[in-house]
Amino acid sequence: MEVTLKHIAESVGGTVVGDVSIVIRGIGSLALAKEGEISFLADPGLRDQLRTTRASAVMVKTHTDLFPGSQLVVPDPYLAYARVAAMFAPPVPRFEGVSERAVIGEGVVMGKGVSVYPLVYIGRDAVIGDEVTLFPGVYIGDGVRVGGGTVVYPNVSILPNCIIGRNVIIHAGSVIGSDGFGYARDGDVSVKIPQTGTVEIGDEVEIGANNAIDRASLGKTVIEKGVKTDNLVQIGHNVVIGEHTIIVAQVGIAGSTTIGRNVIIGPQTGIIDHLEIGDRATVVGGSGVLKSIPAGEVVAGFPSMSHRLWLKTRGHIRRLPDYSAKLKELDKRIRELEQQQEKERQG
Amino acid sequence: MEVTLKHIAESVGGTVVGDVSIVIRGIGSLALAKEGEISFLADPGLRDQLRTTRASAVMVKTHTDLFPGSQLVVPDPYLAYARVAAMFAPPVPRFEGVSERAVIGEGVVMGKGVSVYPLVYIGRDAVIGDEVTLFPGVYIGDGVRVGGGTVVYPNVSILPNCIIGRNVIIHAGSVIGSDGFGYARDGDVSVKIPQTGTVEIGDEVEIGANNAIDRASLGKTVIEKGVKTDNLVQIGHNVVIGEHTIIVAQVGIAGSTTIGRNVIIGPQTGIIDHLEIGDRATVVGGSGVLKSIPAGEVVAGFPSMSHRLWLKTRGHIRRLPDYSAKLKELDKRIRELEQQQEKERQG
Amino acid sequence: MEVTLKHIAESVGGTVVGDVSIVIRGIGSLALAKEGEISFLADPGLRDQLRTTRASAVMVKTHTDLFPGSQLVVPDPYLAYARVAAMFAPPVPRFEGVSERAVIGEGVVMGKGVSVYPLVYIGRDAVIGDEVTLFPGVYIGDGVRVGGGTVVYPNVSILPNCIIGRNVIIHAGSVIGSDGFGYARDGDVSVKIPQTGTVEIGDEVEIGANNAIDRASLGKTVIEKGVKTDNLVQIGHNVVIGEHTIIVAQVGIAGSTTIGRNVIIGPQTGIIDHLEIGDRATVVGGSGVLKSIPAGEVVAGFPSMSHRLWLKTRGHIRRLPDYSAKLKELDKRIRELEQQQEKERQG
Repeated sequence: MEVTLKHIAESVGGTVVGDVSIVIRGIGSLALAKEGEISFLADPGLRDQLRTTRASAVMVKTHTDLFPGSQLVVPDPYLAYARVAAMFAPPVPRFEGVSERAVIGEGVVMGKGVSVYPLVYIGRDAVIGDEVTLFPGVYIGDGVRVGGGTVVYPNVSILPNCIIGRNVIIHAGSVIGSDGFGYARDGDVSVKIPQTGTVEIGDEVEIGANNAIDRASLGKTVIEKGVKTDNLVQIGHNVVIGEHTIIVAQVGIAGSTTIGRNVIIGPQTGIIDHLEIGDRATVVGGSGVLKSIPAGEVVAGFPSMSHRLWLKTRGHIRRLPDYSAKLKELDKRIRELEQQQEKERQG
Repeated sequence: MEVTLKHIAESVGGTVVGDVSIVIRGIGSLALAKEGEISFLADPGLRDQLRTTRASAVMVKTHTDLFPGSQLVVPDPYLAYARVAAMFAPPVPRFEGVSERAVIGEGVVMGKGVSVYPLVYIGRDAVIGDEVTLFPGVYIGDGVRVGGGTVVYPNVSILPNCIIGRNVIIHAGSVIGSDGFGYARDGDVSVKIPQTGTVEIGDEVEIGANNAIDRASLGKTVIEKGVKTDNLVQIGHNVVIGEHTIIVAQVGIAGSTTIGRNVIIGPQTGIIDHLEIGDRATVVGGSGVLKSIPAGEVVAGFPSMSHRLWLKTRGHIRRLPDYSAKLKELDKRIRELEQQQEKERQG
Repeated sequence: MEVTLKHIAESVGGTVVGDVSIVIRGIGSLALAKEGEISFLADPGLRDQLRTTRASAVMVKTHTDLFPGSQLVVPDPYLAYARVAAMFAPPVPRFEGVSERAVIGEGVVMGKGVSVYPLVYIGRDAVIGDEVTLFPGVYIGDGVRVGGGTVVYPNVSILPNCIIGRNVIIHAGSVIGSDGFGYARDGDVSVKIPQTGTVEIGDEVEIGANNAIDRASLGKTVIEKGVKTDNLVQIGHNVVIGEHTIIVAQVGIAGSTTIGRNVIIGPQTGIIDHLEIGDRATVVGGSGVLKSIPAGEVVAGFPSMSHRLWLKTRGHIRRLPDYSAKLKELDKRIRELEQQQEKERQG
């Protein structure tokens, strides 16, 4: 694809300094961009690469003398990168129509322009929206509804009656609607509690690879609009995750916990059941969250504490051997003082 | 489905206070149950909802004046909920018979009433028990045996020669019988140790979604009767897990560790190799277990310690900045005492 | 299979003490080996089993009087075990040729002796090397290249344009080439950064079950020759992992981090983005690595510190309740000294 810098400026906003008519054929990092491509400076630490990049144009926050070519001055070069890269990105490959080697159940309602690859299974009464893409090995259970524009990558399993929104992306190997982990105990034996609820995933959600999102025991597990999960994330039954929240890799969220909007959960964090995580809270990676978090707070550690406190304590832990030695030293000096005082009193 | 409250009482035990002939059409939480449904009070914190629930009957531990309708008094309302919910739960959907679009190897022995969906692969000489259900995308390796009544959800892989018990449930995406992680080092190069053992899974086991359970290097990895694993659990080669043990999400158990019966392993815990975890031990979530645990003990932390000690230490960690300040203060006061004493001695 | 002990000695090196002509039919641990089999002593703790083993020959580091039969004295009995076990291990089962029930795209180049099971999907223009084995449910995206001798186990997804080396093993359920987790924020909304790079996996790599290895945003994610990953490992976009590095189960490595050669990353460790882990470094399991690690260092803890320091601090954490009590005691004794001194001064 070829576009002019003028076209890019019109698409993402910003002001061109230099030649607006130059033709751009791709986008790359400052280090990797080739002649004819556009690049961007998002990380100030890479500033020096502006001198050496072979890019024909760059997107910057403020005009710079380091780069001789055309510059597109934009408020947020990283965001501009996301938008321009989307122009040049190859489209997701699609099978044309519904493969005869897919298995389509009775009563399935198929939208316009769907792409159903071979070796897909769609259960009875499922509803597949317009322009949906289902890759090989995808299992769509009975009664599932998939919204328009959604892409489901290979070997994803969406169990019966789950509801997937519009323009959702689900990466390979993920499981939506597995049974929640719930048992009553009868003596030593675990008696399964039927998990008869569902999962509802909102529009523009992106689910990473090899996630496991459990269906509710009763009612539904909810992933709201715009949520993004990374790979290997575990979401328990009856969890609710608010709009635009970001969940990084290998996080586990236990049953019935409610997470607000625009929350960020760092990688490998665990959150126990039945908590409330407020809007715009941030949980630093590797944390263990054992109690609810008010809106806007930043927590870290296991068990989690304010991030500020955690930053303090982590330095102290390294110094524990010194503290222990210091305690012994102080004890010794006090004993000497005590002995001296005792001697004086007796003297 | 419709049953009388009398029928429910006969099935789960307990005593009806009120009208035994009322007809029950479903079960729900106190908040969600509709007229004609039964509910239950398992969490005393929800007691007030007894006043407002629309349920026509409730299961309670002791009769209560808060609820005007029929009450079924049972020793364990949560267990009763599990049993009654099972009555009303829709059955697992089944394909009728063996699909022509499944691939069945030579020498496969198929039981009565099996349900083999399209896009299932069954390797040669596998034995599939009566009433087994295999969902699309399931791979059953050569020589695998699957016991009667077992349900294997989509895209599960059961590698050759593994043995699965009766009435087992394996959730989507799980892998049974992948190679254990074993290498000898030849200089810098890792030389693979062939993993020629198998995995044996007992009756009534339930395996969560996207688990990985490795086959033994020699001998077998064993998951005994009634064990339940949550999602994204890792079980190494030659591990043995005793009956009715519960393993919560994202736990990792390294090779050759033996876990007793009725153990509970909390989420995101890691257990190193070659340990012995005694019967009825409990490991609190997020722990790192580096040594064996005697029967019945409760441990927590990384490295794990007694839960009681862990509860104490975690409070102290938050106060480390105070302790550090206190150490400095004491040091200063001692120095003043020392100087004073020195002065007095000289004076 | 039957071989003489002489043949084994010629294959793995070492010196036979005893009868070189005896016939060996298999290999087993000292405890499980049967008559006619060979065993080995790699763990000195099992020394006593030499007296009771039923094995007909053993591989040992130094000749021992504890075992009456033939002994093969080798420099590294564990390595010898790996090599001898490989002789006796059953070969990976293979489908003969390309199944008619696999789906092969246009322009696919198929090597000699390939084994493509039913229910495999190979996208257009993919290149499949000689003697490759693809198990049921494998998805090979458009333009993927798979090197000769590689085995891809069931339900693995290799997304478009990824490159897999020779003699690679990828265990069931793993995902190679899922999108990296990258978004720019536009107010509250996450704007996806197209992930247009690829993944390159070197020769002799082994990837565990249910891994997720993301494609680069631009450029490539690289897993170099001889790397071994255990199960449920997460590798972010643009990560580079050097030759022969070992990554144990449930590790997560965030984007753009570079890991050297012959590194060992213990289980359940997290490593944040944009770090450099030097050659031959070791990260103990359960660590959280927040800064780069020089070559050869051994680190542990969260945040990671030198292993030596971590071993010290972990003991201190258990004693924190004692330290707190000691601080109070010292404070009290100092106060008494101060009061006494005050009294003396006034007196």
